[in-house]
Amino acid sequence: MEKGTAIRGNFFHLLKDPWPLIEKESDSAQFIKDGLLLINDGIISGFGTYEELSSRLDNYDVIHKPDHLLVPGFIDGHIHFPQVRVMGAYGNQLLDWLQNSIFPEELKYRDRDYATTAAHHFFRALLGAGTTTCQAFTTSSPVSTEVFFDEAIARGMRVIAGLTGIDKFAPDDYCISPHEFYEESKKLIEKYHGLDRCLYAITPRFAVGCSEEMMQACCQLKKEYPDCWVNTHISENPSEIRQAKEEFPDCFDYTEVHEKHGLLGPKFTAGHGVWLSNDEFRRFSHAGAAVCFCPLSNLFLGSGLFRLGKAMDPDQPVRVCLGTDMGAGNSFSMIRVMEEAYKVGLCNNTMLDGSVNPREQDLGESERNKLSPYRAFYLATLGGAKAIYLDHLIGNFVPGKEADFVSLDLQAGQHALAWHQQLTCLDGVPSAIDEAVELLFGVLACGDDRSVSETWIAGKCRYQSNDRGVE
Amino acid sequence: MEKGTAIRGNFFHLLKDPWPLIEKESDSAQFIKDGLLLINDGIISGFGTYEELSSRLDNYDVIHKPDHLLVPGFIDGHIHFPQVRVMGAYGNQLLDWLQNSIFPEELKYRDRDYATTAAHHFFRALLGAGTTTCQAFTTSSPVSTEVFFDEAIARGMRVIAGLTGIDKFAPDDYCISPHEFYEESKKLIEKYHGLDRCLYAITPRFAVGCSEEMMQACCQLKKEYPDCWVNTHISENPSEIRQAKEEFPDCFDYTEVHEKHGLLGPKFTAGHGVWLSNDEFRRFSHAGAAVCFCPLSNLFLGSGLFRLGKAMDPDQPVRVCLGTDMGAGNSFSMIRVMEEAYKVGLCNNTMLDGSVNPREQDLGESERNKLSPYRAFYLATLGGAKAIYLDHLIGNFVPGKEADFVSLDLQAGQHALAWHQQLTCLDGVPSAIDEAVELLFGVLACGDDRSVSETWIAGKCRYQSNDRGVE
Repeated sequence: MEKGTAIRGNFFHLLKDPWPLIEKESDSAQFIKDGLLLINDGIISGFGTYEELSSRLDNYDVIHKPDHLLVPGFIDGHIHFPQVRVMGAYGNQLLDWLQNSIFPEELKYRDRDYATTAAHHFFRALLGAGTTTCQAFTTSSPVSTEVFFDEAIARGMRVIAGLTGIDKFAPDDYCISPHEFYEESKKLIEKYHGLDRCLYAITPRFAVGCSEEMMQACCQLKKEYPDCWVNTHISENPSEIRQAKEEFPDCFDYTEVHEKHGLLGPKFTAGHGVWLSNDEFRRFSHAGAAVCFCPLSNLFLGSGLFRLGKAMDPDQPVRVCLGTDMGAGNSFSMIRVMEEAYKVGLCNNTMLDGSVNPREQDLGESERNKLSPYRAFYLATLGGAKAIYLDHLIGNFVPGKEADFVSLDLQAGQHALAWHQQLTCLDGVPSAIDEAVELLFGVLACGDDRSVSETWIAGKCRYQSNDRGVE
Repeated sequence: MEKGTAIRGNFFHLLKDPWPLIEKESDSAQFIKDGLLLINDGIISGFGTYEELSSRLDNYDVIHKPDHLLVPGFIDGHIHFPQVRVMGAYGNQLLDWLQNSIFPEELKYRDRDYATTAAHHFFRALLGAGTTTCQAFTTSSPVSTEVFFDEAIARGMRVIAGLTGIDKFAPDDYCISPHEFYEESKKLIEKYHGLDRCLYAITPRFAVGCSEEMMQACCQLKKEYPDCWVNTHISENPSEIRQAKEEFPDCFDYTEVHEKHGLLGPKFTAGHGVWLSNDEFRRFSHAGAAVCFCPLSNLFLGSGLFRLGKAMDPDQPVRVCLGTDMGAGNSFSMIRVMEEAYKVGLCNNTMLDGSVNPREQDLGESERNKLSPYRAFYLATLGGAKAIYLDHLIGNFVPGKEADFVSLDLQAGQHALAWHQQLTCLDGVPSAIDEAVELLFGVLACGDDRSVSETWIAGKCRYQSNDRGVE
């Protein structure tokens, strides 16, 4: 029997949704000081205190991380593989930005060499940010999709992606016909869906870029491959929504475009949803569909403030994951995403507390916008996994799940951070859950990719911050 | 004659306000490829191309920085010296946040040792962020104010600060009586105002924390020392504004509190102004008073979106500087401030373009919210200097000004950034102004304190990123 790997250190993970647990949020999580994570063949085979589990160590190589905090790997629910080089491009809202900055760059990914070079940078940045799973858009070129999956396989990563369909509102040579999209998607599904840790998402880019025929191709693919995911965008920008309504005049709203084509349901994720109506939130909830909240991007493109507290309505909860939406999001870091999500939440908190407009007061929704460290790390790990229907495989340290995790240096980052974190505990390593979440909030608020010391995929270290060459 | 210092490299700086120069913004700035900056006794004695000026190099030590971009030092118009350790504290809007997280920490700064240790961290982080001038709040303790000025002097920095007056809405032992505030402020003004590069700001913390008597003490100080600056907060949070109106029932609005006490005028800066009315913007403009836009903080505390495009109304322009507002702002980095200012601007851009609410369409104001790299770096340098009435001393490379500048590594930062910047030019060093601003936007959007390679104060290198010990 092959030797396993055992990680000894301090662990924090979420066990359930913290939103309903106001005043007792710590019930949603677990902190283990001097814990042990046992890994065999990439799968967690044991998790508990060192004291409990150390008797099982005979057949394990033990790695000790006493100075860090180990958390589950981050899940990026929405990212664009071909936008690395145009990340954070100046200076327009969504529709102009796509034409001027994005499509010209994405076109280059038809070239396998270029796409392969890009994948090198993309996955290094992803792992350097502590992201172990992503749900990605590729381009309209099958080559880019193949390269994405091949490079994910080389790193052993759990990923979701798919050929990204668009047949209008883009340069002619970037568009793909619905027929070709259908045929190429089928080939890619047959080859990659379920290969190693790859999963396939049928991917209509967004309604403004998809003809009725393209949406029907997606509908047909989902019928033939009901096990596949569906990944798209929705209601990101007010002008985009108007245009979507013009393109689909028989649909009352943006969500209906997806309902009508049999896509809205489990395993469906739409990025953004900044301008979803109350009606649409309700339908997302009932359908079991997910919204990916991408605050870096929503702020960078000026799209608006996602109504997190509305999505978390206990009477009609919507599945929510977090995403960078890199390149409209200006960082690969899910820590930066949590930071910006906190900020968007606090802005909504103020707008709904009655101090601006008494008629818009909703203290429950206002409170649900407040992203405590429990809530933030839930969305970035277990909650994100749940949103994209992967929580049986990833999201925390429960035995049986895949061993994807991050070793956080709670004091690394901008200059004053170490002294800042030492206010909570002198050696910077927590001794109880309250300290752990306080330090994690410090990371969320003041940290970034520098907080990530190591990233482990299926029990293998694939990134070390002090050796940027490891992948 | 003592030898001077000459810096040879690539320079970018602003010469005038870019806002009126739509479509020809490059007229507001200058880029010099292979330029030369001559420095004698901390003052710029010459600036131009290397070709023009190299004949004058006999009496200079030459330092060559061919791989970087040299820009004027950043000006942080609003920062709290005693909040380093509580930077980015969880989890409330302004008024609760002050009580729970801020005052208890600020109290510690009565102790000279603690304040001195803090100053070490504070100034290192400031210089590491490329900030060469700040306008700072200290605490209600004269000790903290002395330490702040002494440590600024030790580093040769141009700073503005002052004893921070608050006599209510804070723990008793944190409050200072109006009489004591008046007496201690006088002593500090006599000692520090004009000492080396220090300047004094009469500093009523904010109206909710100041009694009528405290405001009168400030009024009296400004009469006795009309040359002093005035630094405070205004209209940050809706609940704060309501409370300020209750505290000053004879004032129609928040701005009138400062008008009534003879403070609103040149050299007056108020942080935030998120909720200033159109009337108040007009009065700020006429008075020559400045607002400090602190987007990191405004988002972090959920205060709201500052109306930059309104402040830049050409018919009634308001002086605007940028500030971190660290610790409500969750970073020392003015690059991060520019990033968040860009985001706030884009959100306002969308809200005013007519796509959300046609009645609120204002295309001029919408456009003025768009923070081009010219506009952003203007606010962080020359524009900021102008807002706080220091543009005769700092803000760009014009001979006669003080030699405060930053050497930017345009490719340093998060993992994918170098490859990203190489899309603009292969070696990452610009050859023309268009490339320079494109790369600077890359820094703004995707960079942070890691972009700062060196920080020079009055012609001396006080920070090097590869040697964190230099201060």
